This record gives sequence, C-alpha cells and structure tokens, in this order.
Amino acid sequence: MKRAGPMPPAARAIVNGDRRVLARVISQVENGDPAAAPVTRVLYPRTGNKPVVGVTGPLGVGKSSLINQLVARLRELDRTVAVVAVDPSSPYSGGSVLGDRIRFDRRADDAGVFFRSMASRGEVGGVAAATREVTRLLDAAGFDVILVETVGSGQVDLAVRDVATTSVVVLVPHLGDEVQTLKAGLFEIADVFCVNKADLPGADVARRDLVELVALGSDRSGWRPKIVSTSTTQPSGIEDLWSAIAAHEEFLDRSGARRADERRRVSSEVVELVREKVGRELAGRLEREPALRHWVDQVVERTLDPHTVADRLAKTIGRR
Amino acid sequence: MKRAGPMPPAARAIVNGDRRVLARVISQVENGDPAAAPVTRVLYPRTGNKPVVGVTGPLGVGKSSLINQLVARLRELDRTVAVVAVDPSSPYSGGSVLGDRIRFDRRADDAGVFFRSMASRGEVGGVAAATREVTRLLDAAGFDVILVETVGSGQVDLAVRDVATTSVVVLVPHLGDEVQTLKAGLFEIADVFCVNKADLPGADVARRDLVELVALGSDRSGWRPKIVSTSTTQPSGIEDLWSAIAAHEEFLDRSGARRADERRRVSSEVVELVREKVGRELAGRLEREPALRHWVDQVVERTLDPHTVADRLAKTIGRR
Repeated sequence: MKRAGPMPPAARAIVNGDRRVLARVISQVENGDPAAAPVTRVLYPRTGNKPVVGVTGPLGVGKSSLINQLVARLRELDRTVAVVAVDPSSPYSGGSVLGDRIRFDRRADDAGVFFRSMASRGEVGGVAAATREVTRLLDAAGFDVILVETVGSGQVDLAVRDVATTSVVVLVPHLGDEVQTLKAGLFEIADVFCVNKADLPGADVARRDLVELVALGSDRSGWRPKIVSTSTTQPSGIEDLWSAIAAHEEFLDRSGARRADERRRVSSEVVELVREKVGRELAGRLEREPALRHWVDQVVERTLDPHTVADRLAKTIGRR
Repeated sequence: MKRAGPMPPAARAIVNGDRRVLARVISQVENGDPAAAPVTRVLYPRTGNKPVVGVTGPLGVGKSSLINQLVARLRELDRTVAVVAVDPSSPYSGGSVLGDRIRFDRRADDAGVFFRSMASRGEVGGVAAATREVTRLLDAAGFDVILVETVGSGQVDLAVRDVATTSVVVLVPHLGDEVQTLKAGLFEIADVFCVNKADLPGADVARRDLVELVALGSDRSGWRPKIVSTSTTQPSGIEDLWSAIAAHEEFLDRSGARRADERRRVSSEVVELVREKVGRELAGRLEREPALRHWVDQVVERTLDPHTVADRLAKTIGRR
C-alpha cells in the first residue's frame, strides 16, 4: 500500500510467524484496543488471497468435531490451518465459548495449526468487524486456510457470509423440518451443505431433500451448492467436504465471482465501520453539547419524537 | 405535541381501543413499513407513563409460564396487560417464535389482554427499535402494564434495559454457576431477580447466593434489586413477583430515577436511529456514486484499507 509507513515491529513479527505476537494483537482487536489499528492497517495489503471457510449450523450438529477432522485432513494435505471460533451471541451468554475452548482439540504441539476462540464484547456488528480483522491477521500470518466456526448461538449465522469466501452449512438428518423453515436463509449463504451424522437414520432422506432444494433454488452467481455427507464417528466424508470447499474456491477464481463477493463484503464492512464511528461520535456529543442534550430532553418530555430528533441529528453530523 | 397535525384515523382507532388496527400497525412497525411512521409519531406524546416490564433469562427457566401467571395475577387486580414476546436472535432461528405462539396461553376471550410475538426481520438494533415502537403503541392503546419477554435466544438479553422500565431476570436453582458467570451482566440490568422452579432442590442455595451478590454489588441509582422465589407448578410467589415490580416502579417515581432512565433510553434510541439512517443512506450512495464506488474498489484491490475509506466516508456524510 503506497501510503503505508514503516512496518510496526508487531506487524513484522506476525508476518515472520511469531505466534505470541499474533495472539496478542488478536486480543487487542477483540478488546477494541486502538493499539491494533496500525498493525492491521499496514498488514491489509498482504491479505485477501486465502480461503476463509465459514462453518455454521444449528447447535448440536457436531461442528467442532467436523472442524477437528477437517483440520486433520488439511494437515495430511500439508496445508497450515487457523481456526477462529466466534460466539456471535450476547456477551453474557453463559460461558459457551469457555466450554468450546475445552471441547476443542487444540493440537497444541502442531505449529501448522492455530486455534482461537473469540467472545462477543459488544454488539453484533462489533463481533463481525473484529472477526474480519482477525481472519486478515491470520491471512497475513501465512496460514493456508482459515476456518471460522460460529458457536454457541444455536442458529445459522447469516453474518458468516460477510466474512467467509466459502460458507458451509452443517445440518443433521433429523433437522429435515428445520431445513424447510431455514430454506431462504440457507440459500442466502450456503456454498456447501454438509449433512453430518450421516450414519443416523434418515440421512438419505435429508440428503434427497437438500438435492431437491438445491435443484429448485436459483444459483448464486452460477454456483450450485454442493451437498456432502459426513460422519465424525466413522469417520467418513471429510475428504469430500474439503473437495467441495476447494471446488467452490476454484469456481470463485474461474468465474470472477471472488472479486464481486469481496466487493460486497468490503461495502458491508465500510458501511458498518461508518455506522460504528457515527454512533460513537454522536453518543459523545449527546453527552457534551447542550444544544443536542436539549433535543434529547424534549424527546423525554414528549414535545419532540425520536424520529424527528434523529433526522435533525443526522443532519448535524459532519457539520460542526 | 405542538407540531403534530390532525390525528390519522389509525392513530385515533388505536387510542379508542380498536385491536384490529393496533395489530395491523404493529405488523407495519415489525416489517419496517413507512405507513406506520405518521401513526407512531402522532401517538408519541401519549406514551411514557406505563410500566414496561422486561422479562429475560436463559432458555428453559420457564419465562412463558411465569408470564402467563403474571398476566392472570394482573387481571385479578383488574389491570389490563399487553405482552410482547421478542426473539432477538437471527431471522432464521428455526421457528422458535412460531413455537412460542403455540406455547403461549393467549387468553383469546379476554379483551383486557393482548398478546403479540415479534420476530427479528433484520439486525439486532432493528428489533430493539421495533420493540420500543410497539411498546409505545400498546401504551397509547391504554394497556395498564406492558410485558416484554425475550424468547428463543437462550441467553440473558441485555438490550431489555433499553426498552423496559423494570427488568426481571429469571433464573432457576441449578443455574448457580451460571449466575457467577453472568454476574456483571445481571447487575447491569436486573431490577428484580426471580428464582423460578423454587420447588426444585437447591432453590434455597440459589436464593442465598443471590442475596449475597445483591448485598455485595453496588446499587444502581439507589435501588437494591429485589429477589423473589416463584413456582409455576404450585403455583406460588406470583403475588410477590408483581409486588417487587410495583415497588421498583414506585421507586422510579419517588427517586427521580424514572426520568434519568428514560433519558438514557432515549439517547440510546436516537443514536441507534441515526446509525440506521446513516447506514441505509451510505449503502445506497455506495451503489450509485462512482467516486464512492471507486474507494470501495481500492479497498478490494488493497490500495486503501477499510478504516481509511470509512474515515473518508464518515466525512462525506451530510456534505453532498
């Protein structure tokens, strides 16, 4: 990047593979510490070329086991892997992230794998923004594949499409009815459907239902979602899962969809950053500036309504 | 409100107790239909005097049963009640709201009770804003008490304090450890702690733990959270629960905290409205204006970073 100054030592350390510095800067990003900004800024030009694979799905479908086996498969293929487990729910969700940390097989002795849990410290937009920054740090750190797992929410996380280049939606056989309910949402995000626990009764039916859904649905940018069946107890299907992900990544390059997708992700990111910035600035001004405080008082007193005041405030932004 | 024009027919109908019109305008608010705006705006001066009781807590603590019995208690006291069940989770959460609609005892034959489920159609901020509008419609419609239940999220919803005048956090005995984890978050929002399923083993311990927590914690605006034990199977404690809520409402008036709380809620609401407005406007301009599109392209190409572009975009807002 032309205007980038000399590289801060922490940025250089991350590029050179220093995992302790990487972990520290990730914590800074997670905590909203401004010390991370010069590091992420200078590393930005080195990012955007790695597959970022989002793995989402309802609670209890076995996402973590699946990711453990996907990591093992990628190591067999001699690819390095970073995993980010994100809890997009409220900051006080009762320790699910902690549980996940324990549940996860961290492969602590393998330098080709990096694992990190991230809890939400603020609003939902804040987690998505922090997750994007963290995936870029992992990209700059040189990992071949970045996996993003959404944990603890008990639901399909649509925000994954704002972070991932390939999104995997994991389902299990008995969720057939849920698939119907989720239909619109799933097609919004799924590049790959993974029917996990494929050794359970009903797996064939679930797979057939998905095949029908995919056949009926309109393709997004020419890609028809792939459907794979996996079992983490056998285990089976893990190679197929990675092949389906790799096929989507190849499609992105071949079709030009990668750039269009990145454009959509970047637009959504900068809009979110501006929203955050405007919100923070406005909250501060409402505390400090008597004229603005007076408008709030009038809303409290019911002589003005919130929308009228919001319209006025929106006009004062940038005109100090 | 001085600048309010003639009252639209829908607003008049709501004030006069027409439940069909009320339900229709609530749907408009829920769907983001601009037809609702003149109605909510003209009704705004008639709002802000009713208790809005938020009921939150982890999944499975029996919030809905508790609310059913609280409604019954309020009807015994000859108070009319409106209940809004809000699902703050993702729009594709798998039908929990639908399930809740069925689970709920709607007292369809009692004109003194109004029940409404609301699903999230957009981001989290959007639900909170819609919920506030809906509680105000119910206030203008003349209900004596408005109950807001957060459903389907499996977590304590901190956003309830941006809507409710009194917040009730419901826990059950075996969640003792969870209480420790939730400590900070609970104290942030709880005006009343309700230990439900008080007939289960461990209820005394849970209650004692809470008493200790409350004794240790610093009071918010001079209020020390009340702790009540309830059982919906016996049933027992429901009168105590309402008394604790009513005591907090009296405290708000006596101490002047009601106005301070309302000021905080209004500030947070107008900031959120401005954020939404700025985000919508900016997303549209990024589509339409070549100069802004070019900035996004430079981020995609890694010649500018997202934060630099967000800073520039924030400066263009309001300066067209």
